[in-house]
Amino acid sequence: MNYAVVVTSKRSGRRPGESGTRAAILAAARERFAHVGYHRTTLRAVATDAGVDPALVAHFFGSKQQLFLQVMELPFDPDELVRRLAAGPRRELGDRVAAFALEVLEDPEARSRWTGMVRAAASEPDAAALLRELVTTRVFHPLAEALGGDDAALRANLASTQMVGLVMGRYILQVEPLASAQPDTIARAIAPTLQRYLVGRLD
Amino acid sequence: MNYAVVVTSKRSGRRPGESGTRAAILAAARERFAHVGYHRTTLRAVATDAGVDPALVAHFFGSKQQLFLQVMELPFDPDELVRRLAAGPRRELGDRVAAFALEVLEDPEARSRWTGMVRAAASEPDAAALLRELVTTRVFHPLAEALGGDDAALRANLASTQMVGLVMGRYILQVEPLASAQPDTIARAIAPTLQRYLVGRLD
Repeated sequence: MNYAVVVTSKRSGRRPGESGTRAAILAAARERFAHVGYHRTTLRAVATDAGVDPALVAHFFGSKQQLFLQVMELPFDPDELVRRLAAGPRRELGDRVAAFALEVLEDPEARSRWTGMVRAAASEPDAAALLRELVTTRVFHPLAEALGGDDAALRANLASTQMVGLVMGRYILQVEPLASAQPDTIARAIAPTLQRYLVGRLD
Repeated sequence: MNYAVVVTSKRSGRRPGESGTRAAILAAARERFAHVGYHRTTLRAVATDAGVDPALVAHFFGSKQQLFLQVMELPFDPDELVRRLAAGPRRELGDRVAAFALEVLEDPEARSRWTGMVRAAASEPDAAALLRELVTTRVFHPLAEALGGDDAALRANLASTQMVGLVMGRYILQVEPLASAQPDTIARAIAPTLQRYLVGRLD
């Protein structure tokens, strides 16, 4: 463990070969997460697979969760997304959220990451925690809060049930005609649900 | 294989010890489904575990799916349930469906069967097919059809996404405060969603 060296290198800018090392770590992590699951993946094992010192993995990615987020290659920054969705007419919030969700999920690569995450969450508590962190805590909760609804936490949960249910039904179970319906049809169908859960009447 | 004998016994009424044999088969099947999953369970293996002839399993339960339905001990007959939910004011359909769903899911034994089924469905196509058969095809589709909505199949799918999402969020991922909220709170929150998906406007 040469943590002092790592810290120094952090302060003094990029090391030569840093991007190659990061890429090797990400590739090893992707492989591990896919094959043994989030729970049984360790930073040490990822480091061994990538042929680097474990301290370097911790230096670049901080924690297993951070590493997972990088591997998932989220196509959005949660904070930026919340700002974007919260802007615009309040009565069209559901439309914006639904349109964004379908846009993400209809991209084949992003979709396979999200279905993988929902699948894993059904049986692995750590994956469930990540899913909750990403969808509920980082996006829906601040969104419900920003728009002044009370019960922001419950609202975020409810909006998440609709999104997770959609991923299950359309992309994992692939029930028909839901699976073959046009993205616009789905977005229009779920938008009022998201609108009500996030800022409407709950009873 | 003594199928002729089995058919004869069927025609001539209950064999001595029939209920004991059925119970042994169900116990063996429950064990198999729980430990190796729906997909890898065979009627032959169940018969071996129960110490009976495979023909007897086929005779009593017909198919693996039928056996699974028996093991799941559904607390309702789907046809009867649809009649019951379809009766009463149309504008309160969502309330009736939500109240019934929460009533089932708040029973600890029934809940563990449903969470098991949703969990399995996330990774096993056969379990997914069963879940779809039970929830979408046998309950929501006839319900949407009985109440005269067009797009009954899509409506059934959409209502299913909300129910599966609720099972995932409240009972499997156990996100808070959703997991600890009163059943009535949840029922009131999802009722308008089910109402709209089943008989309301989709766009």
